[in-house]
Amino acid sequence: MIKFGEHFDMSYEDMVVGAYRECLASVDKGIDEDRLEAAWLGTCAGSLIRQEIVTGAALAEPIRFFPRPVTRIENACCTGSDAVRNAAFAIAAGVYDVVLVVGAEKMRDIPSRDSLIRQTSVMFHEWWAPRGATAPNRFGQFATAHMKAYGTEREHMGLIAEKNHHHGSLNPHSFFRKEISCEQVLAAPIISWPLGLLDCCPTTDGAAAIVMTRADIAHDFSDSPIYLYGSGLATDPLISPWKSEFTAFPATTTAAQAAYKMAGIEPTDVDLAEVHDCFTITELITYEDLGFCEKGEGKDWLERRGPMLGGERPVNTSGGLKAKGHPIGATGVSQVVELWEQLRGQAGDRQVEGAKIGLTHNMGGIGTVVLVNIFGSAPIAEAA
Amino acid sequence: MIKFGEHFDMSYEDMVVGAYRECLASVDKGIDEDRLEAAWLGTCAGSLIRQEIVTGAALAEPIRFFPRPVTRIENACCTGSDAVRNAAFAIAAGVYDVVLVVGAEKMRDIPSRDSLIRQTSVMFHEWWAPRGATAPNRFGQFATAHMKAYGTEREHMGLIAEKNHHHGSLNPHSFFRKEISCEQVLAAPIISWPLGLLDCCPTTDGAAAIVMTRADIAHDFSDSPIYLYGSGLATDPLISPWKSEFTAFPATTTAAQAAYKMAGIEPTDVDLAEVHDCFTITELITYEDLGFCEKGEGKDWLERRGPMLGGERPVNTSGGLKAKGHPIGATGVSQVVELWEQLRGQAGDRQVEGAKIGLTHNMGGIGTVVLVNIFGSAPIAEAA
Repeated sequence: MIKFGEHFDMSYEDMVVGAYRECLASVDKGIDEDRLEAAWLGTCAGSLIRQEIVTGAALAEPIRFFPRPVTRIENACCTGSDAVRNAAFAIAAGVYDVVLVVGAEKMRDIPSRDSLIRQTSVMFHEWWAPRGATAPNRFGQFATAHMKAYGTEREHMGLIAEKNHHHGSLNPHSFFRKEISCEQVLAAPIISWPLGLLDCCPTTDGAAAIVMTRADIAHDFSDSPIYLYGSGLATDPLISPWKSEFTAFPATTTAAQAAYKMAGIEPTDVDLAEVHDCFTITELITYEDLGFCEKGEGKDWLERRGPMLGGERPVNTSGGLKAKGHPIGATGVSQVVELWEQLRGQAGDRQVEGAKIGLTHNMGGIGTVVLVNIFGSAPIAEAA
Repeated sequence: MIKFGEHFDMSYEDMVVGAYRECLASVDKGIDEDRLEAAWLGTCAGSLIRQEIVTGAALAEPIRFFPRPVTRIENACCTGSDAVRNAAFAIAAGVYDVVLVVGAEKMRDIPSRDSLIRQTSVMFHEWWAPRGATAPNRFGQFATAHMKAYGTEREHMGLIAEKNHHHGSLNPHSFFRKEISCEQVLAAPIISWPLGLLDCCPTTDGAAAIVMTRADIAHDFSDSPIYLYGSGLATDPLISPWKSEFTAFPATTTAAQAAYKMAGIEPTDVDLAEVHDCFTITELITYEDLGFCEKGEGKDWLERRGPMLGGERPVNTSGGLKAKGHPIGATGVSQVVELWEQLRGQAGDRQVEGAKIGLTHNMGGIGTVVLVNIFGSAPIAEAA
């Protein structure tokens, strides 16, 4: 992946080429580009930024991938993870042996008021859609509900921002590499109560790429590949009146259970996770929904330093969306890059000791689509 | 599928529900909705119309599919076919047994000048993209080049429009059910030489849905299912200066060869085809690119009535994009609906006698992404 950030000096295509070149250069034993048989592109660019049709050619063009097949996936903030998932299906179906997955998003070219905020406030065009309800507002509803139900405090959310900025400070790919304190988070301007400016992830430019292949030929490319164990995708209503609750994201639980089942593991088997901290409250609720702690005990698990580096199950060692940044289509793919470094013991100062199984979690909309992928350092048979 | 047309009285969601209900009702032995384990939604709505983020929830919401997984695919005019393709991968991978594929597009709510024309003129946002070059203009370049190289005449294109309107007049699902003559096509106002108004497919509202399942359990649902034999997807540069030629769409040949190979068939084994006649010239060139005739002999094959009902290999018995309509995300799925009727001998007045193998072909951009799927009436082993 390329460093996430504000890339006013790079076009969408520049970023795609950058991530692609980084990816090829990262293949331990090298890879002939011609071995890549097909690709999946995860990007929201069409809807989000360009307001134009974006095809698989948006990947094929800059990396000269013609005439090979490229499918474009768009599924809100699950876009990158869903590209990984569908590419895996094609390999598991025996159709391709080696494929490329790229996620990319160019978001900083237009002001935030026209991008992240606008996108959620107009997410549905029907009469019943909330007008003017922005993402901080919608997630803020979950924060207040969780505070009321379980005694969660703004300080807990602040601790998550502090943690993720600390992790991000250790990650060369991260947008924000400066530490912030819980006190700073609490003192930041309120965007939509109880979420302040530093509870929100940034709008970001970035791209990430991975090569996926059959487990039985992965050693052609590396002596230490990582393995996809399982994948789960789930949906839940977008609109508040139809949601069953405001203290959990049921689609996370559904997706995670599907992924755990496919992987043959339990939540307690997970050594580290990259989760969707679009807002600090999202990460806290996700601890519970993924089964890392009991319902309502996210704050307690946090106080026990469960998700911290050195804790029971570090979360967002990359810095997460909060510090690493959130270029929507790239996010899910970049989470795999973090696990690829961690599960190979190459994450440097942010290494989780002995990490063998990692999980990625993305949420699109307000818990509307959730995708969980699980990876391990050993072939799944050995792991099980 | 629902009848394609101008559905000012239906929302996007109404159309999705309509196609879904038609689909379930068409399952010979009936189907319990709960057997549908996952879905793929093909729609360009986000980029094209709504200019907002559209997730899998745009399908899950109206048909109450929660919490099941929905992937959204967008790949220009290949969108619907690519949804079919990725759903097939998931089944072939053994992840799901029974899935739903829906394609839908609501295009008539905004004037054409803001939709089909705008979309292609701004398809890429980079400095090298042609500004103001519309789809009729871009495809018109291919028409003039083909006319010069091979002696193709405007009359040949007119014959294709006449043929497809005749076919459409026989199809209850078709937008236009009136016949037009070649003379009318030639006399219509010129949009971009040599393409006149009646050489162009319409902007259309519509939705289509299919159920896909494992071949070995298809008989749970029907005694006469149709089988997916092969699929090919290919890419080619969008921008004119980078195109290698203007008398063929190389991605069609690449995609078709991949699909023929997977299916274990030759072009001559195809009994009928639904091809992407966004403009009449596109269909003519596609005859050649698919191998239905030699290069440059599309006009001759047409004169021999090869693609007509009763001819060697009828093309666009549904009416094609030209008469049936072209709601972008729905088109590829609706092509499968036509083959489903034809390969089961249920296409009424437009039935191709003895049809056993059918092909669908979609092209996005200007030959930029092309997808070919091949279906047959018998399990592939028996067919081979």
